[in-house]
Parts: sequence; C-alpha cells; structure tokens
Amino acid sequence: MTRRFTEFELIEQLFAPLAGPAGLGLADDAALLPAGEETVATVDALVAGVHFFADDPPGAIAKKALRVNLSDLAAKGAEPLGFLLALALPQDWTNDWLAAFAQGLGEDAGSFSCPLLGGDTVKTPGPLTISITALGCAKGRFVPRTGAKVGDGVFVSGTIGDAALGLRLRKDPALAARLSASSRDFLLERYLLPRPRLELASQLRAGASAAMDVSDGLIGDLAKLARASKVAARVKLEDIPLSEAAREALAFAPDLLETLLCGGDDYEILACGDARLFGVSPGGRRDFRRIGEIVAGEEPPRLVDERGNIIEFSALSFSHF
Amino acid sequence: MTRRFTEFELIEQLFAPLAGPAGLGLADDAALLPAGEETVATVDALVAGVHFFADDPPGAIAKKALRVNLSDLAAKGAEPLGFLLALALPQDWTNDWLAAFAQGLGEDAGSFSCPLLGGDTVKTPGPLTISITALGCAKGRFVPRTGAKVGDGVFVSGTIGDAALGLRLRKDPALAARLSASSRDFLLERYLLPRPRLELASQLRAGASAAMDVSDGLIGDLAKLARASKVAARVKLEDIPLSEAAREALAFAPDLLETLLCGGDDYEILACGDARLFGVSPGGRRDFRRIGEIVAGEEPPRLVDERGNIIEFSALSFSHF
Repeated sequence: MTRRFTEFELIEQLFAPLAGPAGLGLADDAALLPAGEETVATVDALVAGVHFFADDPPGAIAKKALRVNLSDLAAKGAEPLGFLLALALPQDWTNDWLAAFAQGLGEDAGSFSCPLLGGDTVKTPGPLTISITALGCAKGRFVPRTGAKVGDGVFVSGTIGDAALGLRLRKDPALAARLSASSRDFLLERYLLPRPRLELASQLRAGASAAMDVSDGLIGDLAKLARASKVAARVKLEDIPLSEAAREALAFAPDLLETLLCGGDDYEILACGDARLFGVSPGGRRDFRRIGEIVAGEEPPRLVDERGNIIEFSALSFSHF
Repeated sequence: MTRRFTEFELIEQLFAPLAGPAGLGLADDAALLPAGEETVATVDALVAGVHFFADDPPGAIAKKALRVNLSDLAAKGAEPLGFLLALALPQDWTNDWLAAFAQGLGEDAGSFSCPLLGGDTVKTPGPLTISITALGCAKGRFVPRTGAKVGDGVFVSGTIGDAALGLRLRKDPALAARLSASSRDFLLERYLLPRPRLELASQLRAGASAAMDVSDGLIGDLAKLARASKVAARVKLEDIPLSEAAREALAFAPDLLETLLCGGDDYEILACGDARLFGVSPGGRRDFRRIGEIVAGEEPPRLVDERGNIIEFSALSFSHF
C-alpha cells in the first residue's frame, strides 16, 4: 500500500494549485481579499449518504459541493470571488480519491472563476463531510428573498424536477428501467451535477424584485420566498417547465408529479419581477419562464391545474435535515 | 418526548438572534457585508471525538469552534466581522443540546463582536461536525506567515502547553490525580476553552514581521512559520513561558515536556519581529515573551536547554489529521 499524503503534502500538491491570489498559496492561516464592493457570503454542507452517494465519482462530489454554493451566489445576483473548503475525510480515503476530488474541484474553480481561498482538512470516524463557504461580489445590487410585490410575475429558469427524479432513479432501478436510456442519463446527470445559473446573475440584478435558488423543491422554496416577502403566490401547473425526460416519466407514473415539484436539488433560479424584464435575453434566449404571479395574502403558494383545480401535496418541500 | 425543532424553527428561534445586520436575519440565502477594507477569511472544522469530547458542554463546544477561528484572525492582525456556521448534527441531537450550543455561541458572538452571518444545518449519520468560516477586517495590514527575517526575535503570548496537558489529563485520570485541584482545573479549562488573542491584533499589525497562532504545538508551528519565511529558528527551552500548573506537572513527569511543546490547542500567538516592539504594552502588561531568534538556514527549529544541548523530539507537532 502506498503511503497516504500527509496534510502538508495534500495541501501543497492537490489544493494549492487551485488557490487564487487571495488564497496566498494556502501557505498562510487565512485568505486576504482585496478591498472592494459589498461581499456576499454563503455556506452549504454536504454529507455522504445524505446529500450525495458515497460512491459517486469524487470529482462530481467536489463539483456538486461547490456548485450548490455558486447557485446561491447566482440567485443573489453576485459574481464569485472564491471559496473556503472544510473537508472531513473518512478513515478509508485514498490518495487517488483525493486527487480526483481536487481535480474536479479545480476544473470548476477554473470554469466558474471561483478560486480556492483557504481550507481545513480533518479526519472523521463518520462519513465524508464537505462544507464550502463561497464569497461573491455584489455588483451594485443584492437580490433579496424579501422583495416580491403583489402583481410581480413568478419565474423559473431551466426545467424543474429533473434532479429529484434523478435521485428517485438512483434509488429505484425498476423505475429507471422503464425510461429510455437518454432520459435516464439526462435525469441522473441532473442529480449528479447541478448547473449553477451564474450566467443569469446580471439579469436578476437588473430585473428581479426577489430571487432564490430552488434547492428544496419548487413549491416549498416558493413558499419560503413568499413568506419572507409577506405575500402569497399562485402558480399554474401547466406553465411549469418540464424536460422531455420528466414528461416521459410522468406519462407512465403521474404520481411522480409531487417528486418533481417538491423534491430538491434543482439549483435553478426562482425569481419575481416585472414580466418585461424576464422576456428574451440579448442572444434571443428565453432564460426564464413565467409560471405564476404574486398575490396578496399569507397562505402557502396555490398550485392550480388547467381546469382551475387546486393541487395539494402532503409535504411542500424536501428536507435534507 | 418533545417534538424536535424543525430546521426553520431552529434557525428562527436559536440562531437568528445571533445574526448581525450583514446576516439579514438569516432569512435570506446569503449574507451581505458592506464594502470596506481588505477581508481576511479563515475556516476550521471540528469533529466530535477528534477535536473535542462529544460529552463536553454544548456551549463550550460552540465557543471552541468559534474561538479557534478567531485565533487565526488575531494572528493575522485582523478584527472580526462575523462568521458562517455549517453544523452537521448527529441522529441523537436534542432541543436542549442545541439551545445550549446556540447560547454559548451567542455569548461569544457578543463578547468578541463577531455576529453570525449565515449557516447551514444538516443531519449526519456520523459524529457532530462543526465548520466555521470567520471573516475579519484587515486594519491596514495583514500579518503574514512569510515575513520572518534573520535577526528577528521569536515571541509567544501567554503560556505554552497547558491545553495539550489538559487533554492528557482528560485521557489519563491517574495523571490527573497527581496534580493539585487548582492546577488540574486550570489545565482542563485551557483545553476546553481557548482564549483567542484578539487583544494582541493591533500590536501584531504594528510590530510583527510574521505571525501565526499556535494550534498544532509550538515547535511544529514554529517550523511551519520558519519554512514559510525561508529561515530557521533557535529557541531556548528556559525562555518558553510555562504556567505554574504545567511546571507542577513537569516536576513529577519530566517526559511531559514533549506534550507541552509539541501538543496542540494552545491558541496563543507566535510572532517574529523587532524586540522593542514586543516589550511592554501601553497598560504595562507584558503580552509577549521572547523565546528565541530567527537565523539563516532551512533546517527545523533548534531547541536548546540551558547547557546548550539540543533537544530532539520524535514528532514535531500534533496532527488532528
């Protein structure tokens, strides 16, 4: 058996190459960020067996841990500055595993311009636990959860429910076997690797009265946003954007609807604001889809089908907690 | 059995009261820090059974988790701005435990002017795991690890080895029984509750060429500082400040010397610089004690006793890793 890296070696060989200038080569006790605009800070922790499967590819685990944080920055209209990593490694870690983890992390640190600023690596008798704090720069405007106003449209980016469905497929091979290979692969990938919507940050700054990322299910997260804004919301089921793969699954298992709308891990953006501001982006892309509207009231979001019937779910949102 | 808090309840009832203005009442997805001077950022993770005892008082666990980060800020000459908390709770957490944890955290957030900025609470099948990212404000100067120069004095604050000895006492009741009650209590307390040396930050900014906090043992941490600064160091054993309690223990167990100098958890400040700058502080206090000097070379620190003999240890520092 090869000797495992010492803590010094793994910092120097695996993680220091991921450090940005503010990370001081990971050779100091802290990072030093230049003076600048307002700073946005967010933290998310992921535990093996709770937020991801312990046998997922290490690079994908690393990317997911970073991306769920980048998704929060995007929803606030912020641009990434960098991140700090606290990594609790289980007893059986290997050099290869850690090298693949660092490689995946480095790929994302590069592609999202979000360098490593600092970290701490410890051992744990429990499962792999990753805590990432992401720091971002508020480019003149922070998009709050609390700003939704009566009359605003409710919008989402991308398609909803794919990742929750991907998780179901991981746990239910019989269900997975009923889907086409391309749909199955698409949904599994959506669970494995969220796509933080950083490209939408500037649109959000310009036009959103309120926004948050969808991490615990669309309906539950909309409830949180409405509650924080002291308003209510109405959503039309038929307007919620679903992928082809999700439609394929729904066609033979209509009861998956609750999973789609109340499951977690979408990491799309839920935003409120004036319809004109969420129309067509400069390149002709339609980044946001209008799914409903903000109304007066304090009750949970109301979801209606095409006949105007109210749809009720047993649990509004998925909780990792 | 009482129902446990939901995630929403524990945020609203236990943690939101600890939030500073930048934490936005913990009601948003991220914190928003005002534009300002350079920001210093550091992260430390603590795992039950590795960095503290799972049955320690929850308030003390919370304080230790925050204080080890504040110690890093102090060593860099920074003033606290606030912190983010990622908390992975084991299956058996109770409302009472969590309330006591939050209370301890709140006491320290108040007394160190370091409010909660944001957090994430998740469940884990493993041990309690706490990751704190502390943000600080660099008041015009960041004190690096890398600045020690040949001819600088080497200084430490406080006394060295007390916490490492406290840990030994926790594990070795027979040893504990040989100490006086007051010494035992003092050493146990030093392990349980580090005292971050934030009051020394301004002296460090003014006078230190290099500094770091002593968390993995004096000799090992001095080796890290010297290596980062590309110098060597010589330390006189007789000049290393020891508490009365440590001297009492050493008197009947001289082999504890290695524990004292190479154990961890001191959270005192190791600093280099001009002797005049570390003399007597405005109030007449002597905050730092000179223990040696920086010399040219690349070898590990050399520790000499009063007869000039070199003292060697088997391991330079304690590793939690």
